[in-house]
Amino acid sequence: MSVRLPATSAREAPENLAILLREPFRAMSDEVFERLAARGHGEVRAAHGNVFQYLDDEGTRVVELAQRARMTKQSMASLVEHLETHDYVERITDPTDGRAKLVRATERGREVFAIVRELVAEIDARLVAGLGAAKLEQLRGLLIELDEAL
Amino acid sequence: MSVRLPATSAREAPENLAILLREPFRAMSDEVFERLAARGHGEVRAAHGNVFQYLDDEGTRVVELAQRARMTKQSMASLVEHLETHDYVERITDPTDGRAKLVRATERGREVFAIVRELVAEIDARLVAGLGAAKLEQLRGLLIELDEAL
Repeated sequence: MSVRLPATSAREAPENLAILLREPFRAMSDEVFERLAARGHGEVRAAHGNVFQYLDDEGTRVVELAQRARMTKQSMASLVEHLETHDYVERITDPTDGRAKLVRATERGREVFAIVRELVAEIDARLVAGLGAAKLEQLRGLLIELDEAL
Repeated sequence: MSVRLPATSAREAPENLAILLREPFRAMSDEVFERLAARGHGEVRAAHGNVFQYLDDEGTRVVELAQRARMTKQSMASLVEHLETHDYVERITDPTDGRAKLVRATERGREVFAIVRELVAEIDARLVAGLGAAKLEQLRGLLIELDEAL
């Protein structure tokens, strides 16, 4: 599933490594939100990945979520509010600080994680079939080395 | 430059390929916005990457930018408005449809692309030194195969 790239000469070339990393990430991410919509979770849109991806099991403060997702606190708060309205997350009192609130996945939010885990396994199987397990392992290894070299 | 991952057992494992793709992309992206801030472009924040990454040289409609960035039209319009206020983009009449507007980079916006291109070359040199040109080529090849297999 490839994305239409902008028609441009003004910036990074398409062979730019950042774009080579971004495109397969986006392809997988697109599949996640299509699958969620098909399973009745159409209210969870791509932007809300910025909440789900960065939630700790025990709950996370909005300011910390915002930092992890590189967003302003206000933008993160508005994503959290949408997910709270639709019963995917709840706000609980931080057990280590009675004045602070943590955002935590509800049961319905945990259903989202379960659907994603299932899809990740499917994608993995597809890639093993398409690329082969050896190339996939090689790719994983190189990506870890890349992250260390950056 | 590694990111603190959430403490979780509820979702994808850290060796999940999507996360292995995301982390180096984010590390590079973080460097871009730090560099931009250091060069006097602190008003260009991570979220605005969603505009710059998807602009065509000749200008792009907001609705098209929103689709490319997987955002709502309203969210994209608000990012564009910020960049317009700070003179990074301008709205011009679409030469193919007098009723439509295109968002296009201004001279100041093109400075941003130039700074990014310069940094991309630096990162590339650092990776050639750290990983070696052969591994880097192997990685690029595998990422292209991955995108095709998805």
